Amino acid sequence: MKPVIILVEPQLAENIGMVARAMANFGLDTLRLVSPRNGWPKKGAQSAASGATHVLEQAVLFDSAAEAIADLNYVFATTARERGQMKRVVGPDVAMAEARVRLGEGQGVGILFGRERTGLENDEISLADAIVTFPVDGRFSSVNLAQAVLLVSYEWQKQAGGALPFAGEMRSQPAPRHMVTSFFDYLESELEAVNFYPPDKQPIMARNMRDVFHRLEMTEQDVRTLRGAIRALAEGRRLRKP
Amino acid sequence: MKPVIILVEPQLAENIGMVARAMANFGLDTLRLVSPRNGWPKKGAQSAASGATHVLEQAVLFDSAAEAIADLNYVFATTARERGQMKRVVGPDVAMAEARVRLGEGQGVGILFGRERTGLENDEISLADAIVTFPVDGRFSSVNLAQAVLLVSYEWQKQAGGALPFAGEMRSQPAPRHMVTSFFDYLESELEAVNFYPPDKQPIMARNMRDVFHRLEMTEQDVRTLRGAIRALAEGRRLRKP
Repeated sequence: MKPVIILVEPQLAENIGMVARAMANFGLDTLRLVSPRNGWPKKGAQSAASGATHVLEQAVLFDSAAEAIADLNYVFATTARERGQMKRVVGPDVAMAEARVRLGEGQGVGILFGRERTGLENDEISLADAIVTFPVDGRFSSVNLAQAVLLVSYEWQKQAGGALPFAGEMRSQPAPRHMVTSFFDYLESELEAVNFYPPDKQPIMARNMRDVFHRLEMTEQDVRTLRGAIRALAEGRRLRKP
Repeated sequence: MKPVIILVEPQLAENIGMVARAMANFGLDTLRLVSPRNGWPKKGAQSAASGATHVLEQAVLFDSAAEAIADLNYVFATTARERGQMKRVVGPDVAMAEARVRLGEGQGVGILFGRERTGLENDEISLADAIVTFPVDGRFSSVNLAQAVLLVSYEWQKQAGGALPFAGEMRSQPAPRHMVTSFFDYLESELEAVNFYPPDKQPIMARNMRDVFHRLEMTEQDVRTLRGAIRALAEGRRLRKP
């Protein structure tokens, strides 16, 4: 069970398509449309959906917001403006954490999104159990319809435990300490051979240099690569010299 | 100090405008553009920005990703695909929590976003300290450019402690208990008067009804409103009867 996305009188087919794409990005697929202003289906939605055609094809039409939520058990209404209604106001993260619990109990959960320019009417917000809004900058609070759906879909996926699609590269384990120590000894002997260290500074400078390399958490391969580079520098110098 | 959004060779002016809008929604304003494919400034960006013109007007142009990040101390690269690079991979929430700490230390932090169709090149990702990706559904992982910027901007605002623009309606405090008890007594006396309770069921049914109303956490105003409604029902019946 996943939340249902309900668009009330969306105007632009392109926005509906982008909503479908945003939903599909985060695993949602149930879209309900209340009286799209320019009719439905409508050219332009498909291309904006950028492949999320399954969401558009399964979209169901309703005549009113009340009918679109009739079978649901819990409904959120999104709004960017305060409406003076005695309802809880939560961010999309809290809303979707709650949705997850309710869906797990077998409840149907929906989220109402309003018209591009004017949002939901007060009577439509009144149908909902709670209000969802976003932590926007008060000076620029108008969120695009598909962007609003994206934030809710993203938080749904996060709250439902959705993982990142790939992890960081698996690094080999850090090289054994004797290999690291041997590398340091080699590095320091080559640096001593070219009088890199000013008199009396060797111990502190060597320690600082070791700290730099320790931060790398070198693998065996890292140690071999760096050792090879130092040998190349040192031998290249010896070869050039004579 | 806030993170810098860097778009590498964006193609559509409309996408750049929507990026500006998404940034402005969550309080970001520093946009850098690396060689926009169709030139810059470009018609179509302004209208898609839907008022976020300050972001577009302050946008700075660069010839390469390397130049665009030259003054920054820490750089994230966004990608939807695994690239086989030995870098940490984090979600936008972790990335922006880290960005907040680094920015607080005076570091410049940027996030690279790639081309609409092909994303960032491997050499560009190689410039970054860590990779950001989104917890997308693996079957539909292509996130629109402005949507990707939106998710990062939203998490920036969240991690930086951005509050919702308005809170739930401040409810008056719950009515004093004597008022609630008096309401229950009145309700039960009116129900008894119309033989609502079957014989012997009065105590349990009254208790259940009290539980329903307790869940409302009624304010004084709530009690007055409900009491008035019950009186109207009871007296209307008495008026109709004779």
